Amino acid sequence: MPTALTFAGVAASGVDHLNLITVPSFPPLKTGEVLLKTLAAPINPIDLIVLKGGYPVKPKSTIDGASVPGYDGILEVVESADPAFAPGDVVMPKEHGFGTWRTHAVARAADLQRVPRTDPRVGAILKMGACVAWVILADAASALKPGDWIIQNGATSVVAQLVIQMARLRGFKTISVIRDRSADDFTEKKRKLEALGGDIVMSEGELERGEAVDLFAGKNIGLALDCVFGESGQRMAELLSPGGTFVAFGQLSGANSTITLTMNLVFFKNLTFRPFRLSKALAARSDEEMDRMLEHIIGLFNSGQIKVPELEVVHWDDGNPAELSQRLRGAVEHAQSAKIGKTKSIFVMT
Amino acid sequence: MPTALTFAGVAASGVDHLNLITVPSFPPLKTGEVLLKTLAAPINPIDLIVLKGGYPVKPKSTIDGASVPGYDGILEVVESADPAFAPGDVVMPKEHGFGTWRTHAVARAADLQRVPRTDPRVGAILKMGACVAWVILADAASALKPGDWIIQNGATSVVAQLVIQMARLRGFKTISVIRDRSADDFTEKKRKLEALGGDIVMSEGELERGEAVDLFAGKNIGLALDCVFGESGQRMAELLSPGGTFVAFGQLSGANSTITLTMNLVFFKNLTFRPFRLSKALAARSDEEMDRMLEHIIGLFNSGQIKVPELEVVHWDDGNPAELSQRLRGAVEHAQSAKIGKTKSIFVMT
Repeated sequence: MPTALTFAGVAASGVDHLNLITVPSFPPLKTGEVLLKTLAAPINPIDLIVLKGGYPVKPKSTIDGASVPGYDGILEVVESADPAFAPGDVVMPKEHGFGTWRTHAVARAADLQRVPRTDPRVGAILKMGACVAWVILADAASALKPGDWIIQNGATSVVAQLVIQMARLRGFKTISVIRDRSADDFTEKKRKLEALGGDIVMSEGELERGEAVDLFAGKNIGLALDCVFGESGQRMAELLSPGGTFVAFGQLSGANSTITLTMNLVFFKNLTFRPFRLSKALAARSDEEMDRMLEHIIGLFNSGQIKVPELEVVHWDDGNPAELSQRLRGAVEHAQSAKIGKTKSIFVMT
Repeated sequence: MPTALTFAGVAASGVDHLNLITVPSFPPLKTGEVLLKTLAAPINPIDLIVLKGGYPVKPKSTIDGASVPGYDGILEVVESADPAFAPGDVVMPKEHGFGTWRTHAVARAADLQRVPRTDPRVGAILKMGACVAWVILADAASALKPGDWIIQNGATSVVAQLVIQMARLRGFKTISVIRDRSADDFTEKKRKLEALGGDIVMSEGELERGEAVDLFAGKNIGLALDCVFGESGQRMAELLSPGGTFVAFGQLSGANSTITLTMNLVFFKNLTFRPFRLSKALAARSDEEMDRMLEHIIGLFNSGQIKVPELEVVHWDDGNPAELSQRLRGAVEHAQSAKIGKTKSIFVMT
């Protein structure tokens, strides 16, 4: 039986209002619609904010008046009433709000982007992981030369792990900054990021205490990728070389954090500060460009040039409903917890 | 006799060390050199900083060990030992440091950009006035639609007066913010900027007190041009519409002023902050693009589509040396004074 996670209202925990329900049946497809089965869907930061009621784009699908969360993932066409898609095609939602945390969905063909067939783990991180890393680097690449350095924070994230690998393919080197943690945990994370090709891996504390300043001498640090903002972002801005670009694409440090633009940063170092918004960046690409980009990115994974970051796979099967509910809600609860350096969880439907 | 203003060392006043000297004679030209007579040269903020020793690019020409100030202006070829130029050609320096505050100069042809013949007043503001306004608007234009608004501060400046007129030619509207001053002076400045086509002219105080907030409702303010930084820049950033661009090209508020990037500005309003540096923007253009751009800009003045901003013409003739020295140094002293809303002075050689 088709199942779905849904929520109504707001819960401070971001999980207490989440219920697994059984979807009785789907009405016959209207022209232009397709019936989909979900292959994989990630639990992303954006989904956690949506569950807490804090994201401006609300879920677009409801079942019995409750919203379906999950803004990313890949799905397979089961039945099509639109000439653009045939059964077996793989797609992802074009826009925020789709509701991927369900085993089946009916959607308008116009809201779907075709995706080459790939591993469910790749599909789960394709849009908000791989596309983010790819597009940020592609848009910044013309201002960088081979051998130039990129500095990024929050570097245990899926995006950061992909940035390390994609930067390397373009001939750029990376400084990856991760939050302070126990010595053992730090050593393990550092080893993993270095194994992916990370050139320098360091902690926020090392950066703050200036212990690494010799490491940066003579390096052209042309790009900072900031998913934290606040003090962590400020430290990276100060490290950028003249003419560099600071890209802000996340705000893990919270709603009140700021970055201060000084004369030194703006006029002497001539830095550009710009936000990155995936929806805007993708909308600027034609359908054909999107197709080519997704094909290229998936090719990098399929050929082994890019390794899939470590992911926690949560199986979404049609077994015992109570057990399934506990497993799925448990995964969301874990993701909502404040523990640092968590491995990203993804739902894989079987 | 050829004359020149020169200075040695640093003077806090930025004028006490400035002397008018007579240049005895020029040696025969070497291959690749040209002899020039200066037609007009402005007294720009950059020159005032150079005289105070505060600008990183130092004067490149010296006479008897003293530096020649003046980084902008137009000159006419008198004699040429390079096939690129013939007597009668008009040129401007390609880079900072040339030394235009002199009646004659010997220069390498490679350091000169050809300029169509025009009024000396246009020539004096061509590079650091008209090119700045033109290039900022040209580089930002693709992100604006006709009817969009541009907000700018320090709006009595030559650049701002040209932005008002050039924005209008592109179908954009302008909000021009000027510093607080006496009621009569404000009324006069406002009237003049409106006569040039300025749509809204207001004071920093009006903006700070929020008196104008109704004026902005429903307007798409897509571009802020900031030559002040600090609080004035911050106010403009807060007024930008989502997706807008903030261009910082001056720092009249002093070396310690800052602008604070908040979550609202970066993530919700998705604003880009970038510096504008004329030398970098011009270097990105090919020789042919430069030629076409200068021809177009001068055409706008010559056809009357753009009015030359009000300028204070200081005649640099070969009359009584003591009188001439007093006149030229007096003009620099006036420019160095803290009085607000001064009319830009230019030297016109006769």
